[in-house]
Amino acid sequence: MTEQAFNLSQPIIIFGNGEAPNHPIALKVLKKASTIISLDGGSDKLISMGYSPDYIVGDMDSLNYDQIKYKTQVILMKDQSKNDLEKAMDWLVCNKINKLELVGCSAARDDHHFANLFIMEKFSNFINMKMVTNWSVFYCLDGLKTFKSVPGQTVSIITKNNDVKITTEGLKYSLKNESFNSPSQGISNVALASSFSLDVSKPVWVIVNHI
Amino acid sequence: MTEQAFNLSQPIIIFGNGEAPNHPIALKVLKKASTIISLDGGSDKLISMGYSPDYIVGDMDSLNYDQIKYKTQVILMKDQSKNDLEKAMDWLVCNKINKLELVGCSAARDDHHFANLFIMEKFSNFINMKMVTNWSVFYCLDGLKTFKSVPGQTVSIITKNNDVKITTEGLKYSLKNESFNSPSQGISNVALASSFSLDVSKPVWVIVNHI
Repeated sequence: MTEQAFNLSQPIIIFGNGEAPNHPIALKVLKKASTIISLDGGSDKLISMGYSPDYIVGDMDSLNYDQIKYKTQVILMKDQSKNDLEKAMDWLVCNKINKLELVGCSAARDDHHFANLFIMEKFSNFINMKMVTNWSVFYCLDGLKTFKSVPGQTVSIITKNNDVKITTEGLKYSLKNESFNSPSQGISNVALASSFSLDVSKPVWVIVNHI
Repeated sequence: MTEQAFNLSQPIIIFGNGEAPNHPIALKVLKKASTIISLDGGSDKLISMGYSPDYIVGDMDSLNYDQIKYKTQVILMKDQSKNDLEKAMDWLVCNKINKLELVGCSAARDDHHFANLFIMEKFSNFINMKMVTNWSVFYCLDGLKTFKSVPGQTVSIITKNNDVKITTEGLKYSLKNESFNSPSQGISNVALASSFSLDVSKPVWVIVNHI
């Protein structure tokens, strides 16, 4: 039995340097975290909200690291070909983590926000993850999954390809092994009951808007 | 010579129901517009900022339309398989419009924001367009293009595929007919001078962050 190098107890969240969480659902995720990994400049935002990071991951280009102020371990990853979220994901996969929640990883800098969605897709087969924003919860799904919902809740499905076959159950506008004809065809579907399910032939993003 | 059905004089902007523009660059685009097309619920946001839409496009599910209040023409497009931005794009292409700026089409509802980026990609070969947000300007490029820049300005390139060949000129981290190995590899490049250029084999998003 190998010794675990780091104490990464669940629930684990990554806290980014995007828009600070202010929706009750996003704040609840943060409050329940057992391990908080902050990304570089996100560390100051986290501390200003009254939390301390358990680990700081990044190249420290956005943070003037002060051992006394942060009182935590820095996982220094210098790699200019990846942003801090992707570096943190690499580190978590190496540590055999397969469940994760992302907070503060959306909005603010548009480029990081957009790249972070593609990073979710890259790691979706390794880590069961969701990104919680002030507006919604993002998932990236390949295959079959059932989601909890509230009747009437808005559910959107977005694909990067036109040829993804999608089957839905429990949504108002149902699909039976169909593809989308337009980029916005999957926007604003509606959950009919307390759960819905999707079965997809390639990765799609599922966005469940907060009630 | 056919008569033009609508008065669509340039510059034309589409104003959406996302985060209201507050950055000076986004506000300047709005101020300079000759034709403002608002999307459904974005009309109220636009009016609250002191502007009037020249046209309102959408299915009017988010707007309680009042002829006296809006004093403008509604292009009613009932199509549940497309969001209001995609409907507006269809209408503009039918009217032979090939240049466009998007304002208020990012942030706020995550699902619309994300879909809008794929809509930009779909129409990128028909309309020369940019999306101006409070953080940056988005372009979607297929082929060769030169962009104006300020030395030191952050430029990010994002692709949805791994096999896009990219060549850059005038950026700090240069690429010569290379592909990205990770989703965030193109984040935070830096403009070296007053312009930079990209040549790409498939569509990419180029995000020029505001100074």
